[in-house]
Amino acid sequence: MRTAAILGASGYTGAELVRLIATHPGLRIGALTADRKAGSEMRDVFPHLTHLDLPALTRIEDVDFARIDLVFCALPHATTQEVVAELPRDLKVVDLSADFRLEDPAVYERWYGHAHHALALQAEAVYGLTEFYRDRIAPARLVAGTGCNAATGMYAVLPLLADRVIDPDEIIIDLATGVSGAGRSPKEGSLYAEVAEGFHAYNVAAHRHLAEFDQEFSKAAGRSVTCTFTPHLAPQNRGILATVYVRGEAAEIHASLARRYAAEPFLHVLPMGRTPQTRHVRGSNHCHIGVVADRRAGRTMVFAALDNLVKGASGQALQNANLMLGLPETQGLDAAPLFP
Amino acid sequence: MRTAAILGASGYTGAELVRLIATHPGLRIGALTADRKAGSEMRDVFPHLTHLDLPALTRIEDVDFARIDLVFCALPHATTQEVVAELPRDLKVVDLSADFRLEDPAVYERWYGHAHHALALQAEAVYGLTEFYRDRIAPARLVAGTGCNAATGMYAVLPLLADRVIDPDEIIIDLATGVSGAGRSPKEGSLYAEVAEGFHAYNVAAHRHLAEFDQEFSKAAGRSVTCTFTPHLAPQNRGILATVYVRGEAAEIHASLARRYAAEPFLHVLPMGRTPQTRHVRGSNHCHIGVVADRRAGRTMVFAALDNLVKGASGQALQNANLMLGLPETQGLDAAPLFP
Amino acid sequence: MRTAAILGASGYTGAELVRLIATHPGLRIGALTADRKAGSEMRDVFPHLTHLDLPALTRIEDVDFARIDLVFCALPHATTQEVVAELPRDLKVVDLSADFRLEDPAVYERWYGHAHHALALQAEAVYGLTEFYRDRIAPARLVAGTGCNAATGMYAVLPLLADRVIDPDEIIIDLATGVSGAGRSPKEGSLYAEVAEGFHAYNVAAHRHLAEFDQEFSKAAGRSVTCTFTPHLAPQNRGILATVYVRGEAAEIHASLARRYAAEPFLHVLPMGRTPQTRHVRGSNHCHIGVVADRRAGRTMVFAALDNLVKGASGQALQNANLMLGLPETQGLDAAPLFP
Amino acid sequence: MRTAAILGASGYTGAELVRLIATHPGLRIGALTADRKAGSEMRDVFPHLTHLDLPALTRIEDVDFARIDLVFCALPHATTQEVVAELPRDLKVVDLSADFRLEDPAVYERWYGHAHHALALQAEAVYGLTEFYRDRIAPARLVAGTGCNAATGMYAVLPLLADRVIDPDEIIIDLATGVSGAGRSPKEGSLYAEVAEGFHAYNVAAHRHLAEFDQEFSKAAGRSVTCTFTPHLAPQNRGILATVYVRGEAAEIHASLARRYAAEPFLHVLPMGRTPQTRHVRGSNHCHIGVVADRRAGRTMVFAALDNLVKGASGQALQNANLMLGLPETQGLDAAPLFP
Repeated sequence: MRTAAILGASGYTGAELVRLIATHPGLRIGALTADRKAGSEMRDVFPHLTHLDLPALTRIEDVDFARIDLVFCALPHATTQEVVAELPRDLKVVDLSADFRLEDPAVYERWYGHAHHALALQAEAVYGLTEFYRDRIAPARLVAGTGCNAATGMYAVLPLLADRVIDPDEIIIDLATGVSGAGRSPKEGSLYAEVAEGFHAYNVAAHRHLAEFDQEFSKAAGRSVTCTFTPHLAPQNRGILATVYVRGEAAEIHASLARRYAAEPFLHVLPMGRTPQTRHVRGSNHCHIGVVADRRAGRTMVFAALDNLVKGASGQALQNANLMLGLPETQGLDAAPLFP
Repeated sequence: MRTAAILGASGYTGAELVRLIATHPGLRIGALTADRKAGSEMRDVFPHLTHLDLPALTRIEDVDFARIDLVFCALPHATTQEVVAELPRDLKVVDLSADFRLEDPAVYERWYGHAHHALALQAEAVYGLTEFYRDRIAPARLVAGTGCNAATGMYAVLPLLADRVIDPDEIIIDLATGVSGAGRSPKEGSLYAEVAEGFHAYNVAAHRHLAEFDQEFSKAAGRSVTCTFTPHLAPQNRGILATVYVRGEAAEIHASLARRYAAEPFLHVLPMGRTPQTRHVRGSNHCHIGVVADRRAGRTMVFAALDNLVKGASGQALQNANLMLGLPETQGLDAAPLFP
Repeated sequence: MRTAAILGASGYTGAELVRLIATHPGLRIGALTADRKAGSEMRDVFPHLTHLDLPALTRIEDVDFARIDLVFCALPHATTQEVVAELPRDLKVVDLSADFRLEDPAVYERWYGHAHHALALQAEAVYGLTEFYRDRIAPARLVAGTGCNAATGMYAVLPLLADRVIDPDEIIIDLATGVSGAGRSPKEGSLYAEVAEGFHAYNVAAHRHLAEFDQEFSKAAGRSVTCTFTPHLAPQNRGILATVYVRGEAAEIHASLARRYAAEPFLHVLPMGRTPQTRHVRGSNHCHIGVVADRRAGRTMVFAALDNLVKGASGQALQNANLMLGLPETQGLDAAPLFP
Repeated sequence: MRTAAILGASGYTGAELVRLIATHPGLRIGALTADRKAGSEMRDVFPHLTHLDLPALTRIEDVDFARIDLVFCALPHATTQEVVAELPRDLKVVDLSADFRLEDPAVYERWYGHAHHALALQAEAVYGLTEFYRDRIAPARLVAGTGCNAATGMYAVLPLLADRVIDPDEIIIDLATGVSGAGRSPKEGSLYAEVAEGFHAYNVAAHRHLAEFDQEFSKAAGRSVTCTFTPHLAPQNRGILATVYVRGEAAEIHASLARRYAAEPFLHVLPMGRTPQTRHVRGSNHCHIGVVADRRAGRTMVFAALDNLVKGASGQALQNANLMLGLPETQGLDAAPLFP
C-alpha cells in the first residue's frame, strides 16, 4: 500500500483525487493540505466525502513527507513552483497546475506573465498526457498534468498529425467546457446566475492552453503548428467537448484514431458518424472520440469528450501516479460514467 | 386594431406569439387553433398565460377567417403546405415552418424527403429575414419564417459576403442551440435527463438549415457558396450562439457588420473583441454580434447570439407581420432581455 | 413623464428595475449609481441592457436629485439607512433592502445584529406589500419593499388569517427559491457548481424573513402568530414556490383567497386542486396561487409562486412607485411570463 | 462469481444496475433484456456504457435462466407481476417496480387501479428497505424494492416512530425529487423545457408512495399512522431531499437517528443543525440525514437526502442482492458521491 499526499485539497481537483483514491486498492491518503482551511475536517469542506475516514486538513509545513510516497500538487500556478521546489528531492510529484507544462521558459513567461522560478524542475518535468508519454512518465519524478482543454483537443488531433492525415495549418478547435474547471474560488463569472441557461465564448484566441497546443502539435508534426482555438462555457458542472475542424479524409482520420487508441483502456473511438456527449463520460476517466465527414470533400470534424475533473485533471493525475508507483495503470479508475 | 389568428398555438412558438402579441398596441388575437387540443383553454395548455383573456383553442375549420387580418402558421412542415393552400387567398400569412423557405422545389425535396405540394405558394413566398428582405416583406402576402439556426448564422455572415470581406469558400459555422427549438412533442432526446448537464453535436453536416445557408449565402455572394455547419445542443431553454470561423481581416469584418446594422433596431454589433452571450438576449428580439481577431493573421471569429423562440421564430414573425400590416416594425417587440 | 433614480444599479434588482422601466410609458431613468463601478456604462456591467440609452453609472453624491421624482434604493441593508437619511426630505423613496421593513426597532436589532440608525425614517415607512397596504403606499414618502420569500408566504396566508379560516398556530411555510435572490456578489454558495443539480435547505428556523412573517401575520390575525419556515435553494435563476401547510377546510381557504384577490391584477388563484409552477410566472409581476386538500380532513396545502426579482422585489417596487407617483398601478408591468 | 440478469435494461434503473455491477467483484451480468430494443447493443442504447463488454439486449423468453443466480426486474408495474410469475421458481428476484411493495392486495388495488394478479408472490415478497428488513431479505427469494420517495421519508421517520420520540399524528413529508425518477419514456412533463429553471409540486396528497408510508409507518408505530406528503419536482437529474416536519424534541430525535444508524455503512446522521444536500450524495448509495430544531419548542425538522437511482432504486437493489447471494453487503457500492 502506497501513501499519497494532496496539496491544495480544498479545491475541486483535490476533492476529486480524494474521491478516486477512496476506492483505490493500492493507494491511501496520508495527508491533505489547505492553507486557509488548515485545521478543518475534509467533511466540513466537502460534505460529499462525509463517509470517508480522512486526515484533517493541515498546512504544508506540517506534513511529514517521510511517510509519503507521492504528492499530488493541486495548487495555483506560480505558487506551485515555490512549493514543489521546497519538497524533498526524492519525492514523486504529480502536479496539476500549469507550472511545469511548458518546456520553453520563454513561452511560459509570455503566457503567464512572469518569469519561471524553478527552471531545473521544469527541465526535469514530463508532460502528463499519459497515452503519449507513458514511457517517460513511469520513471519520472515530476509529472506535469496537462490543461483539461488541451488534453481534449490533443486526443482528437495528435495521432492525425503523427500519421500525416491532416493539414497541420488548418486546425480549428472549437470547444465547450463545464464550469468546475474555473475552480471553487468565488468569481462573478462562475455564479449560477451568470452561467446557467446560457452559452458564450471566453478568452477567444487568447486562452493559455494555446501554448500547450503549440508545443505538442509541433512536436507531433515535426514542424511548427499554430491552431485556432475558441473555448466556450457551457452550463454544466463537468465535461468538455472539443469539435475540431480539420482537412483530411474522414475514413483515414477515423482509421488513424482507431488504430492509435485500439489498446488504450480509456480512449474509445466511436463508429464512424457517431458523436460523443459530455454526459456520457461524466465522472469517469473515459474519453469518447467521434469522426464525421463534412459534406465538403476533404473536410472532417473530429469530436472528443471527457470529464475535465477526471480525465482532464485528477483522473489523469492518478493514472500517471499509478505508472510512477509501479501500480496497475487503471487502478482506482474503473468507475463507469454517471448518466443521467 | 388588427386581428391575427395563430394556427398551431399549442407549441412553443405559438405560445410565444401569444406572449408577444399580449402587449402589442396594434394587434389582437382573434383565434387560436390546435387540432388535438381543440376545445381547451390556452391557460390549461400554457399556464403562464393564465392572466390573459384569450379565445379558446379551436380546429382550423372552425375559424372565421373573415374576421382575421393575418395568420401566423406554426404547424409542422408538410402539413403547413396543405393548410396554407386552403386558406382564403387574400389572407396575409406569416409561416413559421420550413415549407416556404427554399425557392427551388428540387432542393426542398432533397432536404425534406418529399415533393413540394404547393408550388404556386412557394413561388410567391418571401424569405423572412427581415433586415435583408424588408422591402419585399412589407407588400407580401406570404412570408416564410427562417430557420432559427439559419438566421443566427446569416446575421453573422451575410454582410461579409455582400461586402466581399471574407473568403466565401472558407466559412465554418459552429453553433449551440437551446432545446426549445426541438418543440414540445415528447422525444427521448429532449428529456431533461438527456439534455441537462451535458453538451453534444447533432445532425453534423446534415442539418436541414444547410439548405437555407446555401440559398442565401449564394445570393449574397453572387456565386455558389457551400459552408460547413455543426450544430450542438446546449442545456438551456432558449438561445443560439453561432461561432463563425471566416477568412478576412477582423477590422474590415467589424466595420462591415457595424455599417450594415447601424440603423437596425434589433441587431447590435458589440465593440471589437467583445463576445455575446445567449443569456443576454433571452426573451427579446435582439441579436448581439461580436468580432474577435484570431491570433493567426487573416482569420477572424464572428459571433452572433439570439433567442431562437423570439428573433429566431416568433419575434421575427411578428416583426414581419408588423411590416405586412403597415404597423410600426418594432411594435410589441420592445421588451428588454430577461437576465438572469 | 416622471424621472427615477436607481441607487445600487449594479446588482440584479437594480438591473431588473432598468429592464422594467425601459418600457414604462410614464417613467424614465434619470440616474444610476454604483459606487465601485461609478464611471462605467450600464451595458458593460449588464450586457443584456446594451440596446438601451441609459445614463452612465455615477456615485450617489454626483446625482442631481432636483431632477428626480422618485428614488429606488437597491443597496445593502445598514448602508441603506445611512444613504436614505441623507437624501432630500421631499424625495419619494422605494427601498428594496430590509432596513425599513420591521416596525419595531428592537426586532430589527435582534434579527440584523445592530441597532437601527434611522428611527424617524422607520416610523414613517410603509410596508410595501401592495395588495395589503395600497391605501397607505399611495401617499407615502418612504415605502419598504418586502422580503421576496416573505411576500410569497404572505400572499398564501394573509387572507386566511384575516378571514379566520385557518388555525394561526399551525402554519408551516416550506419554500424553494432561486439563486438570484442571493445577489451578484461572488460567494462560494452561489457558484454554479454549488447550486446546479442539487437541492438543499438553508437558514432553517433562522431566516430573517421570519421577522416579517411574525409582524404581518400577527397584524392580520389580531394576535401573536409564530410560524415555522424552511427555505430551500433550488437550481433556478428566478422563482419562489411556497408550499404552506395549514389547518382549515380547503374549500373555505380557496374561497377566501379567490374572494380577496378577485380584483387584483397580478394575483391569480388557480382552480381548486391545481398547483402553480415558478416557471409559469418567470420574468413577470404575476403570482399564481393554488389550493389542494390534504387526504387528512381539516388539513390543506396552499401554494404560491412568484418571480423573486419581479413580484418579490423590483416589480413590487415599481408597482408601489406607480402608486406613489399617481401613475396607473400596472404601468410597465404588463409583460407576460417567459416560458420556457 | 455469481451471475445476474437485468430485465428491463433499457431504462435508467436498468442502466444504473449495469453501472454498479460493472465494478462489483463478485457479480457479473449474464443477460440484459428489453423487449422493444431486443437485438440492440447496450452501448447503442446507453453510450455511457460503451467501454463495457456486455451481452446484447434480448427478449425475456430468450434468456437461459439456468445460468442466472439472481434477476433484477426493472419493468413497469402490472407487467412485472406477469413476468415474475413466469420465472423459474427457484430464481432469486429483486424487483424494482411497485408490484410487490404493498402487503395488502386491497391497498394495492386502491392505489394502482387494478387487482393484483400474483397474490402468492406478494405473500412471499419482503419489503426491501435494507436497514429495517435485513434479516428477512437475506433468506428471501423475492424482494420488493421500495419507492424512492418512500425510502427517503422512511429513513428520516421510522426510528422516531419506533422510539416513540415523535407524535405519529403530526408528520408532514415535504419532498423534492429529480426528474430521472420519471423514467426514460418521453413525456411532456419530463422535457427539459418543462423541468429546467422551475419548481413545482405534483401528485399532491395523491402520490402512490403514500401507501408505502402508511404501511411502514403503521408497522413501526404499532398503530395506524397517516401522514401528509407533498412531492415536488426539482430541476436536477438525481436526488431526493425530504424535509420532514415532526413534533418532538430535536435532541431526542437526533439521538434516536444517530443510535439507530450508527453501524449502518450508508446512512450518515450529520451533526445537529447541519442539513444535507442532494448533490452531496449524487451517484452514491449514501443517505445523509440532518436534524434542526424549530424556533417553536417541541417542533423539529428532519432532512434526508439520497440519490433516487442509487439508494432509492438500483443501489438498494444491489445491496439486497448482495444479502440474498451471501456476498458482502456493501460490495459494488463503495463509490463516493460525484460532486460537483
